[in-house]
Amino acid sequence: MRAYLAGPEVFLPNAREVLDRKIALARSYGFMPVSPGDLTVPETETKYQRGLAISAINESLMSSADLIIANLTPFRGVSADVGTVFELGFMCARGCPAFAFSNATENHFERVSTFYRSDVHLGADGRHRGPDGMALENFDMTENLMLDGGIATRNGAIVTRKVAPDQLFLDLTAFEECLKLAAKRLLKPAVGA
Amino acid sequence: MRAYLAGPEVFLPNAREVLDRKIALARSYGFMPVSPGDLTVPETETKYQRGLAISAINESLMSSADLIIANLTPFRGVSADVGTVFELGFMCARGCPAFAFSNATENHFERVSTFYRSDVHLGADGRHRGPDGMALENFDMTENLMLDGGIATRNGAIVTRKVAPDQLFLDLTAFEECLKLAAKRLLKPAVGA
Repeated sequence: MRAYLAGPEVFLPNAREVLDRKIALARSYGFMPVSPGDLTVPETETKYQRGLAISAINESLMSSADLIIANLTPFRGVSADVGTVFELGFMCARGCPAFAFSNATENHFERVSTFYRSDVHLGADGRHRGPDGMALENFDMTENLMLDGGIATRNGAIVTRKVAPDQLFLDLTAFEECLKLAAKRLLKPAVGA
Repeated sequence: MRAYLAGPEVFLPNAREVLDRKIALARSYGFMPVSPGDLTVPETETKYQRGLAISAINESLMSSADLIIANLTPFRGVSADVGTVFELGFMCARGCPAFAFSNATENHFERVSTFYRSDVHLGADGRHRGPDGMALENFDMTENLMLDGGIATRNGAIVTRKVAPDQLFLDLTAFEECLKLAAKRLLKPAVGA
């Protein structure tokens, strides 16, 4: 089975090294990994065209994959990287099993409460709201309900783990836990095993 | 054609009113609108189950729709609401035309630079990086390239517009511009028109 390895690791200074570690781990659990950056981007005239070319490559890699393992660790704010989230929605629509991990253990409600510096009140309608009036989802979920829901209904799982701040996008323990779960649920044991 | 109206308006204190304005506008341009919150959520025992039930309703509404119009206005940070982004990826995978709008005109690179308080340097590899070493996408795009790319390759468009801060999630001018573009590209003129 081909596993699409989505996540903001592509933005790291040592992206290639971390992606290669993820690829090696995925192989060791019996998957054929594909990940953003696997193919060479053709020359383009403009930056915009280059962006489109990378998007097209990633979409074609996803369309060749059987499952997704997405890194939902909060990125530049309260929520996951939106590129990764787009890819998670894309693979869920294709009916693929979806797994995810996060190197933060605070759930969505806790993270958004922190974003609002705990200035959260319970409204007359029974919903918690920030000072801007916007409601906080409060469903005991890791992320927005579309993400947790999409994963849960496709027999997936979200693994969360607290790591040292300087290992936020480097620690692959939770990623490996996803691989273990996915292998157990999706791969047949080798003959004779 | 059924148009799925995705966006963080569902979190507003006057969500129903704003969603109803969007629905009326979509109808006036010839679309059959569906939007999150259109169906009643069944009673559940836990908050988590309620979250799953809402996710399932939204997925079924999307699966009944022919196109998406997504509100990508930055929400609680530098990027769009992740629930909306999941839905955009979902509809792109279904091959549906995708349109989006944002009530902010700064592009992705400018917003992330502001997030880093302009502490951005050009690395030896030709990529701009923040103080955390993470690369900034620099593709003259509104959002992460997966979003702009997914929309562009499905004959869609992203409309951006600067609005007064207190109208960030209320001003529907850019949304209406999306409806105009979508109607022109997707709907046949009425007989005799």
